[in-house]
Amino acid sequence: MSLLRHIEAVNRWRPERFRPLLLAGRRVGRVRDDFAPVLAAFPAVFRVDGDAVRLTPDAVDTDTLTAAVALVGRRLVADGLIPGWRGEWFDVMAEDGDRPLLRIDRGALPRFGVRAAGVHLNGFVRRADGLHLWIARRAPDKKIDPDKLDNMVAGGVGAGYGPWATLVKEAGEEASLPPEAMRGAHAAGIVTYVMEREDGLREDLLYVYDLEMPEGLEPRPNDGEIVDFALMPAADVLALVRDTDQVKFNVNVTLIDFFVRHGILRPEDPDYLAICRGLRR
Amino acid sequence: MSLLRHIEAVNRWRPERFRPLLLAGRRVGRVRDDFAPVLAAFPAVFRVDGDAVRLTPDAVDTDTLTAAVALVGRRLVADGLIPGWRGEWFDVMAEDGDRPLLRIDRGALPRFGVRAAGVHLNGFVRRADGLHLWIARRAPDKKIDPDKLDNMVAGGVGAGYGPWATLVKEAGEEASLPPEAMRGAHAAGIVTYVMEREDGLREDLLYVYDLEMPEGLEPRPNDGEIVDFALMPAADVLALVRDTDQVKFNVNVTLIDFFVRHGILRPEDPDYLAICRGLRR
Repeated sequence: MSLLRHIEAVNRWRPERFRPLLLAGRRVGRVRDDFAPVLAAFPAVFRVDGDAVRLTPDAVDTDTLTAAVALVGRRLVADGLIPGWRGEWFDVMAEDGDRPLLRIDRGALPRFGVRAAGVHLNGFVRRADGLHLWIARRAPDKKIDPDKLDNMVAGGVGAGYGPWATLVKEAGEEASLPPEAMRGAHAAGIVTYVMEREDGLREDLLYVYDLEMPEGLEPRPNDGEIVDFALMPAADVLALVRDTDQVKFNVNVTLIDFFVRHGILRPEDPDYLAICRGLRR
Repeated sequence: MSLLRHIEAVNRWRPERFRPLLLAGRRVGRVRDDFAPVLAAFPAVFRVDGDAVRLTPDAVDTDTLTAAVALVGRRLVADGLIPGWRGEWFDVMAEDGDRPLLRIDRGALPRFGVRAAGVHLNGFVRRADGLHLWIARRAPDKKIDPDKLDNMVAGGVGAGYGPWATLVKEAGEEASLPPEAMRGAHAAGIVTYVMEREDGLREDLLYVYDLEMPEGLEPRPNDGEIVDFALMPAADVLALVRDTDQVKFNVNVTLIDFFVRHGILRPEDPDYLAICRGLRR
């Protein structure tokens, strides 16, 4: 099979079925046509027409806007129209590097097509026989992709946290790695994609990090989200990504980015350019 | 100053001033409007209308096409309309990974807006006080960016050479690095840009490579294109790129890509996302 199928899978969406979610004229998300009429039932918060969904309290402060959208969101959870409230706030911004305009719960992000940021940490070991990667296995009760393989550490960038603070927090929670172990981690770029799902759209921006693990330091499960860790030759991980669907949907993509950056995937691969271009759009 | 200015500088062009160069209906380059009438004088090779320039011998073989375009090209060099013949053939393709349709001399590439590939090698040393980079200084008689700073090794991917063969060849010619020294080099991705120049358009695809230089191995000038090499702290190189114009125009961009991949430039930088997105379009 081809590595490219994973990049194509996370970049599949039909733009013509979505209309922009606007706040004071700026796009902060995207609403699918079949969900727009649902929001029209809340005219104090949303004004819906054929071209766009507008947040109507556009002159108010962040906290008020956040509360107004949350009230609608909780009602939609009760009605089964949003899969669940996750208890994790995400900042909503109009553009890269912009200030947050409101916050929204993780469970409601796809319905509003709001861009979310995450961090993914590749933990690796250099050995004489090549690079090895620490690969996590997700718990069987995870909402998304239970039992699948994952990066050593990964998590969403919650409201008020930057990518680095998120990474340090998640490293402790998921892999029992103390903050001092994270000093050797470094940022290595971004991976982006836009993906249609049953409940809307995921427009994700993933900050990727690398950490060369020193001898004697091993990740251990902590908070129950990860059940075990295995150290695998990078070439075996590449084969898993290429030939199976054992890896979490978007971790396939951050691993492909790792393979590109570390020369495990090479320009001689006929899909190389399409893969490089597809990782960041 | 900002790192972003270098990315903006290599992505400045006015699409409305160019028309496609077509071969059998497929775009192989772009011709600026002011150059199209010049090509109209060679109707055996080019058919020019308001929408496009077409290569007319579209059913012939690669060698014949190559010769036909070269005859026109040499005439235009004589007339001062192409800056010079470089004696280096580049493959012309319609799309990524496609087979070559004809070859064209390096000096004529911008006039025809043909995409060209290059390789850039970052030679680096890990020290206790951080990464250091081997930076080359270009000879004062180089046609493009004389005296400017450059990657340890760089060069164009000529017709018939792949990126790896080009890299090994250039490493010997420019930096006296033998093929066995290159075994430790690995591909690390691509950088792309489209840049308008006085004589047309550069649509470049750069394959970037990293090589951690072992103790005792140093680059030395060989073929006269590079006059010296200096090992500099990566942070100093970042400052040079940010604050000066001492670095060759597109080497600024491959160095920024290195800084991103190695965490020398971080997500906390307000331009980080624009920089990441701007490196690959």
